[in-house]
Amino acid sequence: VKTTLFSDKKAVTISTDGPFTVVGEKINPTGRQKMAAALESGDFDYIRELAVRQVQAGADVLDVNVGVPGLDEPALMAQVVGLLRACVDIPLCLDSPSPVALEAGLAAAPGKPLVNSVSGEEKRLETLLPLVKERGAVVIGLLMDDEGIPATPEARVAVAEKILKRATRVGIPPEDVIIDPLAMSVGADSQAGLVTLRTIQLIHERLGVNINLGASNASFGLPDRAAVNTAFMVLAMFAGLTCAITDPAKLTSIIRAADLLLGRDEYARRYIGHFRQRQKGPAVVVKDLA
Amino acid sequence: VKTTLFSDKKAVTISTDGPFTVVGEKINPTGRQKMAAALESGDFDYIRELAVRQVQAGADVLDVNVGVPGLDEPALMAQVVGLLRACVDIPLCLDSPSPVALEAGLAAAPGKPLVNSVSGEEKRLETLLPLVKERGAVVIGLLMDDEGIPATPEARVAVAEKILKRATRVGIPPEDVIIDPLAMSVGADSQAGLVTLRTIQLIHERLGVNINLGASNASFGLPDRAAVNTAFMVLAMFAGLTCAITDPAKLTSIIRAADLLLGRDEYARRYIGHFRQRQKGPAVVVKDLA
Repeated sequence: VKTTLFSDKKAVTISTDGPFTVVGEKINPTGRQKMAAALESGDFDYIRELAVRQVQAGADVLDVNVGVPGLDEPALMAQVVGLLRACVDIPLCLDSPSPVALEAGLAAAPGKPLVNSVSGEEKRLETLLPLVKERGAVVIGLLMDDEGIPATPEARVAVAEKILKRATRVGIPPEDVIIDPLAMSVGADSQAGLVTLRTIQLIHERLGVNINLGASNASFGLPDRAAVNTAFMVLAMFAGLTCAITDPAKLTSIIRAADLLLGRDEYARRYIGHFRQRQKGPAVVVKDLA
Repeated sequence: VKTTLFSDKKAVTISTDGPFTVVGEKINPTGRQKMAAALESGDFDYIRELAVRQVQAGADVLDVNVGVPGLDEPALMAQVVGLLRACVDIPLCLDSPSPVALEAGLAAAPGKPLVNSVSGEEKRLETLLPLVKERGAVVIGLLMDDEGIPATPEARVAVAEKILKRATRVGIPPEDVIIDPLAMSVGADSQAGLVTLRTIQLIHERLGVNINLGASNASFGLPDRAAVNTAFMVLAMFAGLTCAITDPAKLTSIIRAADLLLGRDEYARRYIGHFRQRQKGPAVVVKDLA
């Protein structure tokens, strides 16, 4: 299956045949004080810089989350989407728990954006799927529902089936739904990684859709989180993961290496291209970084 | 399947249920001028230091290769095995293309060592299997034969079956044979990684034996080899690899992280233990490091 996102001029295809798609996670104030402060003070240069740096580091898509308590999230979402559109020409992933903020982002975003996210929760399905359909966007579906996060891979796959069914009912094609199986901390439960990996395998085999992960939860509460995040990314890619919301500066090299080893990078072109790009630094189209 | 190696006092079990076993690769002069010079000049302090450092970094077993053109390999093998026996109490992996050197190592090694290696080549099977049987050792079987390295996973598995059959015939039980599927460079052939991974999966499913890899060949000729070696280790572990001859200082952290994510490390005990060991440095039993 191929899912194609668009910015103003650029198409990015997420494919179950690879290569892997990197969604840059850094434009998100959750747990990032400097980003929260930038949003509060309106320091948009910092946001532009983060955007450009992520693209240089290998991001194919940029996640945009502007949720800071007390700020007007819909207005800020539209504003930040607008400034990103002006400085990097790659598709955006609009990230918010608020349907109103997502609606504002969808109106401001170029091309065909990604919406992060619906889940199996009734209220989100009812509110968001029609918005996604109307805008012709792509949506991420998290594998949790009104009962919480199912404990077993089988039960998580049932939520995926529910989300796909409800999307189809409003006219969203299956390739425009990307399933996110959710990663829990292996620090809290040593079987948590395996549950997510098996869920990915089952979704890959049975549903064949693209699969996303916000891959840094797995290491929560553990020392040397980079080792756990790196290993988890590679394991998940082998299981069937096709994109991830992650830090491109930390994980693009290992992702390109895994693609190469999985036979998805002829003549190691992308791997070597990424290595050279890292060596020489800035080489990205910046439209409006004044 | 469980394969148990012994030093003088310590048992190390390589198991298809994990956790993963690390064989330290550094005592080997191939491509390491300092090691070659140490062997030529008889600078055994350097070898002791390498041994202790590898154990501290997480090695469960130590590979011993002393092949330097012009030196008396069997005598040197016996000597180095003796000094390692006196300074680190972990099982050894005797590594040589020379049956005479392996025989000398087997006579000097404590407990139940690992022999690296036989292959499907007739001459090696005939010469080495009886030595392994007589000494009660464990042997690594490389998936190549008199025709070379087979191109397909199926053909490599056929070599594994041949090696296991021949071992059984001389009285070596299947758990005392560890299969090495061989890794070729993905720089030269972008499908090479996938062939090795599929071979590991097939051996794991059909033969159920322990599987080893000298994991740094995959990255030969590529830049940033650490990224490729790291990704390959994790992919191979997911496919069914149970031990590897590798650099413990570089790969133990990611190996422990992968074990944790694969549900083989309850309460993250080994992962956190390794992290603490790395933080505090030396804490190893050194019997004779004067």
